[in-house]
Amino acid sequence: MEPVRYPGNPIIRPEDVPPSADGLEVVGAFNAGAVQVGEETFLLLRVAEAARCTDPDTVPIVTADPDRGEIRVVSIPKNSPGLDLSDPRQVIYGGHRYLSSLSHLRLARSRDGYHFQVDARPTIVPRSRYETYGIEDPRITYLAEEDRYLITYTAVSNLGIAVGLMETRDFVDFRRLGIIFTPDNKDVAVFPGTVQGHYAVLHRPSSSHLGSPDIWIAFSDNLQYWGNNHHLLGRRPGMWDGIRVGAGAPPLLTPEGWLEIYHGANEDNSYFLGAVLLDRQDPTRVLARSQDPVMSPIMGYERTGFFNNTVFTCGVVPGPGEQLRIYYGAADKVTAVADTTLGAVMDSLR
Amino acid sequence: MEPVRYPGNPIIRPEDVPPSADGLEVVGAFNAGAVQVGEETFLLLRVAEAARCTDPDTVPIVTADPDRGEIRVVSIPKNSPGLDLSDPRQVIYGGHRYLSSLSHLRLARSRDGYHFQVDARPTIVPRSRYETYGIEDPRITYLAEEDRYLITYTAVSNLGIAVGLMETRDFVDFRRLGIIFTPDNKDVAVFPGTVQGHYAVLHRPSSSHLGSPDIWIAFSDNLQYWGNNHHLLGRRPGMWDGIRVGAGAPPLLTPEGWLEIYHGANEDNSYFLGAVLLDRQDPTRVLARSQDPVMSPIMGYERTGFFNNTVFTCGVVPGPGEQLRIYYGAADKVTAVADTTLGAVMDSLR
Repeated sequence: MEPVRYPGNPIIRPEDVPPSADGLEVVGAFNAGAVQVGEETFLLLRVAEAARCTDPDTVPIVTADPDRGEIRVVSIPKNSPGLDLSDPRQVIYGGHRYLSSLSHLRLARSRDGYHFQVDARPTIVPRSRYETYGIEDPRITYLAEEDRYLITYTAVSNLGIAVGLMETRDFVDFRRLGIIFTPDNKDVAVFPGTVQGHYAVLHRPSSSHLGSPDIWIAFSDNLQYWGNNHHLLGRRPGMWDGIRVGAGAPPLLTPEGWLEIYHGANEDNSYFLGAVLLDRQDPTRVLARSQDPVMSPIMGYERTGFFNNTVFTCGVVPGPGEQLRIYYGAADKVTAVADTTLGAVMDSLR
Repeated sequence: MEPVRYPGNPIIRPEDVPPSADGLEVVGAFNAGAVQVGEETFLLLRVAEAARCTDPDTVPIVTADPDRGEIRVVSIPKNSPGLDLSDPRQVIYGGHRYLSSLSHLRLARSRDGYHFQVDARPTIVPRSRYETYGIEDPRITYLAEEDRYLITYTAVSNLGIAVGLMETRDFVDFRRLGIIFTPDNKDVAVFPGTVQGHYAVLHRPSSSHLGSPDIWIAFSDNLQYWGNNHHLLGRRPGMWDGIRVGAGAPPLLTPEGWLEIYHGANEDNSYFLGAVLLDRQDPTRVLARSQDPVMSPIMGYERTGFFNNTVFTCGVVPGPGEQLRIYYGAADKVTAVADTTLGAVMDSLR
C-alpha cells in the first residue's frame, strides 16, 4: 500500500537550483514545505550549498552573513595557522566553526503539482545569530481564518539547533516572529486551526540525558509564546520508528481527528513515514497510530543520495477529494512527490 | 571577597529531615528555593532519598507513584530475571528504569534565617508522568503585584529533564501550571516583575549536538506560554564558568538593572557562583558580568559531599538594607547560608 510515486521523480534535483553565489554548488534541494496557493502549488525548498574547490592551495568555506543577508564563499590558504580540517563535516578556523554545507530556503511554484519553476535567487536566507549555519526543513501552515501563512524552520548556529517562526501573506515579505523553541528542537509544525481557542504545535525536543527524540505538543495564544507541553508520541524500539520520531507535514483536520504524517527512523537510520490520529478537541490524546509505515524508502533516489534510505516529508497537500499529495525529501538530496488517499492512510491506522 | 559563611553551617543536613516513608534514607537536603514571607524565611528544600538496604537478598528501589502522590520502597529479589544492576546510578527491572535516589520538595521555616524547622512530611511530591524520577532544584519568585508565589522546578522522568511551574499563595495549596520547557532544560527562574508588560524568565536548555549549556531568556504574557527566546549568557572556556552556566536565584531588581546570581562550572566540574547585570528595560542586554566568582567552594562541607566542590544557589533573600543572604546547596548534600552585600556583588562586576 505504498503511495504512488510520480514517474518523473525526482521532481527537483540540486542541478535544477541555481546556486546563490559564485563558488557555491547546490548539493541538496529537499525537505520542502508545501502549500496550495490558489491555482498554484508552492514549495519552500531547503537548498543546501557547499563551496566548490577550485584552488588546490585553499580551503573554500560556505558562510552566512546574517547582517547583510548574504551567503558566500571564503577561501582560506591551506597553510594557515589554526586551520583544523580533521572532521570532514566541518572546518575550524580562527576560533570559528564552519559546516561543510549551509542551507537556505527557496521558493518553487507549479500549476500541475509536478513541474516546478524554481526561483533564481534565495527566498529566505540567514538573518540572525540563530541562523548562521543555515535554515532548514520548513513547514508551512495556512491559517485560513487569518489569511496568513506560518513557516516554522530549523535555525542552526553555534548556539544550537533551535526553531524559528515566520509569517507571510504573499510569500514576498516574510516577518520573523522569533525563536519559539530552544536547542535541541526541530520538526515543528503548527496546526492549521485553533483547538478550543488555542493554537497548537507539534515539536521534537531531544535530550542528551534522560528521554528520547519524541514528539511533544504545545499550545499558544499568540503563536510567539508556547507552553502547556505534553509528551505525545514516543519512539517504538524495534519498529520502523524505533530510534526517533518527528512531525512531518502540519496536521490535517479530518472528520476523525487531526491526522499527522510523521517520520520515524529505525535502528539502521532509515527514515519512513507513518501516521498518527489525534483527538480533534484534545490533540494530546492519541487515537491511533500506524503499525506499519505508510511509506518506505524503496526507490533508487530514496535509497541513495546524501543520507541514504530516507523519505522525509515537510508538506502534504490535500485534495482534490480524498487525494493526499505527499511532497518529500528523498535521501536528503532531491525532492519527490507521491499520491495517496486519506482512506489509505486511515486504513494504516486500523 | 567571599560572602561571610554562617559559622553554624550547614544549617540543614540530611539527618535533620525525616524520611517520607519507611525504608527510605534522606541523602541530600540542598538546592533550596528561598523567600521571605512576613517575619519568616521559607526554604523549599530539595530532599533526595534513597532506599535503605536491609535485606541482603533483595534490591530496594525508591519509586514515586504520581497518581497517589506517594514515595515508597519496592524490594526486588536479587535473583529476579531481568534485574540489571550494572550501572550504580540506576536499576533496570521489568522494562523500567529506577534511579538510585529520588527528590521531593520540603518546606522549612525560620524566624532568624539560620535556624530552620523542617516539615515532618513532604510538601510537594511527584504528581505527573513528568515527575516520576523526582522534583528538583526549585526557585521561588514572589510576584508582589499579584501577591502570589511562583515555583519553577526540574521535573525528572523517563521522558527527560523538563521544567514545571507551579503557583501558591500560602505554601499550603500548590497549583501546577504545566511543563513550561521541554527536555533538556533546567535552572529556570522567573523575574519578580514584568518587563515592559511581559513576564520574563531565565532558562538553561542544553543540547547534544551544536551549542552548549548556556543561559537563555524568554518572555510570556500569562506565565504558561513562553517564547521570544534569546541566548543570553554563554560559558567562558578556561574560566570558572567554562563548562556550563545556569540561573541561580531569581533576578533581583536593583537601581542599576536586574542582578542575577548564577552558577558556573569549570573544567574540573567544580561549581561557583557569579553575577550578571541585565538592562532593566531590555534584559536581553548584558551590562556586566563577574570576571572572578562571587563565591567558590572552599569550606569542608562545600568540598566534600555527594557532588564535591559545589556551591549552588536557588534562592537569595535581600535585605535588610544592602544585605544579600545567599542560601545555597553545598556539595549536593547540605544547605548552607552566607551573607554578602549588594555593593560587594556589584563590585565583582566592575
